[in-house]
This record gives sequence, C-alpha cells and structure tokens, in this order.
Amino acid sequence: MIKLYYHPISFPSLGPVFAAEAMEVTYEKEVVDLQAGQQSSPEYLEINPYGKVPAMKNGDFTMSESAAIMRYLARKAGSEFYPENIEAQAEIDQWIDFVNHHIRSAVARVQFNRFVAPMIGADIDESSVQTGLGFLKSNLPIIENRLSENAFLCGDTMTLADIALIAALEPEKTARLDLSAYSKLSAWLGTRRTETFYTNVHSHFGAEMGI
Amino acid sequence: MIKLYYHPISFPSLGPVFAAEAMEVTYEKEVVDLQAGQQSSPEYLEINPYGKVPAMKNGDFTMSESAAIMRYLARKAGSEFYPENIEAQAEIDQWIDFVNHHIRSAVARVQFNRFVAPMIGADIDESSVQTGLGFLKSNLPIIENRLSENAFLCGDTMTLADIALIAALEPEKTARLDLSAYSKLSAWLGTRRTETFYTNVHSHFGAEMGI
Repeated sequence: MIKLYYHPISFPSLGPVFAAEAMEVTYEKEVVDLQAGQQSSPEYLEINPYGKVPAMKNGDFTMSESAAIMRYLARKAGSEFYPENIEAQAEIDQWIDFVNHHIRSAVARVQFNRFVAPMIGADIDESSVQTGLGFLKSNLPIIENRLSENAFLCGDTMTLADIALIAALEPEKTARLDLSAYSKLSAWLGTRRTETFYTNVHSHFGAEMGI
Repeated sequence: MIKLYYHPISFPSLGPVFAAEAMEVTYEKEVVDLQAGQQSSPEYLEINPYGKVPAMKNGDFTMSESAAIMRYLARKAGSEFYPENIEAQAEIDQWIDFVNHHIRSAVARVQFNRFVAPMIGADIDESSVQTGLGFLKSNLPIIENRLSENAFLCGDTMTLADIALIAALEPEKTARLDLSAYSKLSAWLGTRRTETFYTNVHSHFGAEMGI
C-alpha cells in the first residue's frame, strides 16, 4: 500500500496527504517526528536518503518532493486531478510551479521567522520576512484574479494545482498572513477547509500540536 | 512553431532553451528585453499575463514556468528526456523539484545580491547571500553524491532533471559560487558546457551581455 511520510507542521508535506484524500487513493500515513530528529534516523533515511518530509513508499519504490509525489499519486490513480491531455497537464504544471516558487517559498520565509524560529530559539531575520511579504503582495493578486474568473486555478474542477495552493497557504494564521485584501481567495480557502479531503486530515493547520 | 521567450541572464529561462536543443525540438526563440521592461509590454502580456520569463507559445497555446515548459516540450516530442513510465517520471519530477527548490532558489539569492543588485543599484542583503550559501552547502553534496554514482541525476542518460541542474548552476561565475569542493559536479558541468545543446545557445552564461 502507498505510505505517505509527513509532519503536520511541514506544510509542503501536507500536499500529498490532501491529494491522496481528494483523489480517494487508498493509503496510509505516518508522522515523522521532526522535533525528535526522526528524519535523520537510519530507518527514515532508508525511505528518503535526503532526510526531509514528505516522502512516499509504494512497495520497493520510494520518492520525495511534494509536487512530485502528488503527480505520482494522480498517475497511479488515473485521476482527473492530473488528466492525460498534454495542454491540461501543462496548465496544471504551470500553476503548481507558480504556487510553489512564488507563493509557498514566500510563505516559508514568513512562517520560519514568525513561527518556527521563536519556537526553536533561532535568530529572526526581519529582512527575510519583509522579502517574503513583498513576494506575496506581488503574486497573491494573480491568484485572486484566477479565482475571480474560475472556480479553481485551472478551470471548473479541482486539480493538483489547487491542492498545492491549499498546502502553501496552510500557515495563514501561524505566519500571521493577512489575506483580507483577497476576498475570493479567502472565501475559496474557507470553503476548501470544510471539505472532507481537508477535514479528514485535520480541523485546521496546527491542530495536531494543540495550536 | 514552438516559440520560447527568454532572457540570457535569467537562468530559469535558459532551461526550456537547453531542453529544446537537447531534445532536438524544432523551435524559435526570442529574447525579452528585461532591462527595457519588455516583459510588461502589452504584446508580451498577451503571451504571459504574469510578466515573467520564460514563456512558450505554440499556435494559440501559451504557458509559463521553466520546468512546466520543459515537460510540455518533452511530451510533445515524445522524448526519452521525460519517458512515459510512471516511476521514471516520478524520479525525474523529484530531481527537478530538488534542484529548483533547494539549489536554484539558493543560487538566485546569491546571484541577485552579488550580480543583479549592484547592476541595478538595489540594496545588497548579505544575510540573504549567507542563507543561500548555507542551502548550497547542505544540498550540493547530495548532487555530488548522485553524480558520483550515476552518469546523470536519474541514471545513465540525460533527462529534464539534468537540464534543470545545468540551468540552476549557470550563474556559477557571476554569483562567485565556489564549486571546487564538488569535483564530480564541476567536471560534469564542464563537460555539459562543451556539448552542442549548450554551445548552440551560448559559449558561457553572460556571453550575450559581453560578460
């Protein structure tokens, strides 16, 4: 059976879990205890030699990287979340990369400095926070515009690109992101977070840690 | 005909050009003059409404994002650079994302502050440079290890993952990256840069700007 390795506070690692739920893939999941250093244990390095979450194991086949795992799950399931048509795949690929390079990476800067660094006693880099917020201010309007014109990023139905977006914006509260200027996006996220694929994972980001 | 829009100093935008050359795709390319602001011109926004390079146009179909365009080119060409097998695609997807998220993004921090910022008179963020160099120090040994075990990132033959790596490390000199600790990677890059797919594009990164 497909097994997904993740940690509930690693938002890139939630992408494959949401994808598996949304595509109704039969899978099991296992939390890798990042705080205890389990990602560097010999057992976990057998699954992912690079010591990061997420990872995936299916029989003897193992792999890592959030969007790569999501594509693998969709292909195995023959899911319409990543249909076979070349142009449809191209559009989904484009939006996955737009989200991960221009939104998720910016959220990561803010989340690290506002949430993770204080927790682990690391230095806070306010300049990195401001750079991240600047990227979001440039790129979130593009997402807002897409969701004003379409029900989902790539049209009328949910695809892997939407799952990437939902995962990227998980730290909305912990990173103290203000999304109020993006009314379509805020409403869209609110709806997605009431859907079964999401509530089967958690009630909200951080719930597993009592946040 | 497939048309690729790029700028020779935007290293993510070189990925699709190298990929088209390596897969012997029939294509034409057009430089978008970033210094003159051509990426914001009405004509270019018809191609890519998000005002970035790279972009691709094939008939009425347009798209953006470096790795997404590379996959599109490979699928259209039926190329072994991205074969149909699900596990092979998964491995290539994993390494494209490993390279783009953990190498290219780090190179971008260093390149921006050491090369672009002085050119455009922007502030230099030394802390961002150090963060980028730190990421490279953590992640380049993984690449070095892969290239010690395999001729290419995903085995015996070149794939889109290798093209992503070559593009990501284009700013080796302009960002003053010291790759001497990674002898396999250095030799591998040196060889790739003598190959036709590369020399058809330029003699070295920056050559078009007289660098």
